[in-house]
Amino acid sequence: MKNQSKILHSDNYHWDTVPRKVYKTDTNNFKDISRYSLLGEQEDEQALNFQMRYFEIEPGGYSSLEYHRHPHSVIIIRGSGSVVLGDEVHPLHLHDVVFVSPETLHQFHADNGEKLGFICIVDRYRDRPTIPDEHELEEKVKTAQTREKIRR
Amino acid sequence: MKNQSKILHSDNYHWDTVPRKVYKTDTNNFKDISRYSLLGEQEDEQALNFQMRYFEIEPGGYSSLEYHRHPHSVIIIRGSGSVVLGDEVHPLHLHDVVFVSPETLHQFHADNGEKLGFICIVDRYRDRPTIPDEHELEEKVKTAQTREKIRR
Repeated sequence: MKNQSKILHSDNYHWDTVPRKVYKTDTNNFKDISRYSLLGEQEDEQALNFQMRYFEIEPGGYSSLEYHRHPHSVIIIRGSGSVVLGDEVHPLHLHDVVFVSPETLHQFHADNGEKLGFICIVDRYRDRPTIPDEHELEEKVKTAQTREKIRR
Repeated sequence: MKNQSKILHSDNYHWDTVPRKVYKTDTNNFKDISRYSLLGEQEDEQALNFQMRYFEIEPGGYSSLEYHRHPHSVIIIRGSGSVVLGDEVHPLHLHDVVFVSPETLHQFHADNGEKLGFICIVDRYRDRPTIPDEHELEEKVKTAQTREKIRR
């Protein structure tokens, strides 16, 4: 079998040959967030059943408020912030690990005056996220602190 | 669906409720390396098709020299070192990403005077590693620098 192993050398949260990408193109319920596809999207990485991405949120920014069947495995590698996870808000610091279980509403926030950067692993084949409407939000989020944190 | 999401808060490369584990119990071709299973092994994490582990190698230590069909996705989150990848040796620094493709011989070394710590993602269901014998090593590794780096 051909050796397709590789190293992506890193320099200050950028990686060889890995471009900064637009976070999402189909929705706009997010702010100041970049996406870097590190492993699992290239032709020579098809042996991977999952994808490793790096997301970086500028201070004051946030990811899309969404839920889906596929779970997320996340580890913070830069800065701090918080995450809306179902009906709760949790602070996040360096190297904290987040498991977003199936169907759990979630949104990452760089709300601590610095960037929030994290590695996120997902299945290669996965369902598309659902963006909740106002009615659904009222059903899913009962806690005032969480409702105040959410951005749409 | 039940919300089984969770945060594992980190403090200096240790995580809430995550014990340090023996690296491997079936071989002894490694030195001074610890394993922490972060996500994907617990009963309430069965939605994950992959596992997130943290490995930490003490200065002078190294992982098992091995190969297998399942690929590895690795990101360095502590210190520096190097990796034997097939017939090559590559230096590793903070946040470097390593793709170990199927059947590629590999061994991580904390050979730069400090610890080497990395996140490694693998399929939940995967084949067992093969430890090459002397004959196989001669076939697979032709480069003198790589042969000198390898520990068994």
